[in-house]
Amino acid sequence: MNQTIETILSHKSVRKFEDKALTDEQIKVIVQSAQAASTSSFVQAYSIIGVKNKEKKSRLAELAGNQPYVEDNGHFFIFCADFHRHAVIGDMEGTDVTASIESMEKFMVALIDASLAAQNATVAAESMGLGICYIGGIRSNIQEVAELLKMPAHTIPLFGLAVGYPAQDTGVKPRLPMKNIYHEDEYQQDEVVFNSQLEDYNKEISGYYHERTKGKRSDTWTSQMANMLRDPKRMHMKDFIEKQGFAKK
Amino acid sequence: MNQTIETILSHKSVRKFEDKALTDEQIKVIVQSAQAASTSSFVQAYSIIGVKNKEKKSRLAELAGNQPYVEDNGHFFIFCADFHRHAVIGDMEGTDVTASIESMEKFMVALIDASLAAQNATVAAESMGLGICYIGGIRSNIQEVAELLKMPAHTIPLFGLAVGYPAQDTGVKPRLPMKNIYHEDEYQQDEVVFNSQLEDYNKEISGYYHERTKGKRSDTWTSQMANMLRDPKRMHMKDFIEKQGFAKK
Repeated sequence: MNQTIETILSHKSVRKFEDKALTDEQIKVIVQSAQAASTSSFVQAYSIIGVKNKEKKSRLAELAGNQPYVEDNGHFFIFCADFHRHAVIGDMEGTDVTASIESMEKFMVALIDASLAAQNATVAAESMGLGICYIGGIRSNIQEVAELLKMPAHTIPLFGLAVGYPAQDTGVKPRLPMKNIYHEDEYQQDEVVFNSQLEDYNKEISGYYHERTKGKRSDTWTSQMANMLRDPKRMHMKDFIEKQGFAKK
Repeated sequence: MNQTIETILSHKSVRKFEDKALTDEQIKVIVQSAQAASTSSFVQAYSIIGVKNKEKKSRLAELAGNQPYVEDNGHFFIFCADFHRHAVIGDMEGTDVTASIESMEKFMVALIDASLAAQNATVAAESMGLGICYIGGIRSNIQEVAELLKMPAHTIPLFGLAVGYPAQDTGVKPRLPMKNIYHEDEYQQDEVVFNSQLEDYNKEISGYYHERTKGKRSDTWTSQMANMLRDPKRMHMKDFIEKQGFAKK
């Protein structure tokens, strides 16, 4: 196993960072790594906002649900879907691109592009000994986040990425059994196999939480998922996405 | 610069592979790497289908727009948004999860989760000396692809990933200037700066194509984008996404 794969397999989210800012050189390498990711038809349909301003970070932490590591980290990136650039290019080149950039297809392209870039940023940061945590919480108050960052039409702040020097050591969280995620030749739907995979995984996860919390917690993955998915969250999303000029048709 | 960052920065899509299949061990490492990526609230809302069957690969190549490297590669993965697993878990746990998994928010979560996983797979593969190419083309005939792979409700085949031993050597394609992608503290919209960044980039890209095609091609990035975005593509997408039970509210 090479060093890159070791880095990837030892990933764990870090939610407590040392009080030490990333250097401009580190930020540059992380952003360049993000940009090196594949992009659909070379469209590069994303932007990254790096927030240094203390007041802004503090406000973002509030908007993301009072997560202190949004404020306290080495650097905070926000990955955004971005077809604003292409709207401007349409004007420059005298081409009407609106129907295209406002389609569901291009919304998906922007999300995929931004996420591929973000994961490159993550792997690059972790390879330098830094820790990361993705922050979906910025979507809880996405309208306010978009205003704070002065996002124009045809952009969406998708998620944050807190990066910094780890001040905690957590364990690697066991993932679903490979056979539950990975199918050969077509989607496998054997209910008996599926249930037995989940039973095994529930035991593993329950044991993981039990050990990590010294017995305070031992919930299974399926109960955790059912509890989380009982109440729909962020139901403002569809309106916001359409208002920003995405996924209309 | 460490080896991982070198791997990331030297990425280029490979569209011609040697006739040599990946081993099961290589596939396993790639899938495990994918699974090690962050996942929103631990939801793991994706699946990966590895297609080995020759007839299926040949049909997928047709459906993706007759791209030969969909058929001829070391292994072909398809990354899928997947909340089917959670629908089944809802039944198991006696919890109604429908409104949640059919929301725009969870559609975004599934796309982001699947893409983070895919990029880990890419970096792992490239670190082993393999080449990759993402295949968005499977969305051109997404209904037929979904049927071929027997995808149930609450799943979407998002994109393919062709992996294999490179049989061509292409150059690294220059990305947008960092300052055009990366903003500090808030979204920058200075038109003069923006235009001058794009002018510089157009010169760079035009020169890149000129050299690579021995003078046959020298289009700019903005003209390439305007031409591509003139005609909306894959306008069946929204109906398909909603029919699969995603992004309804």
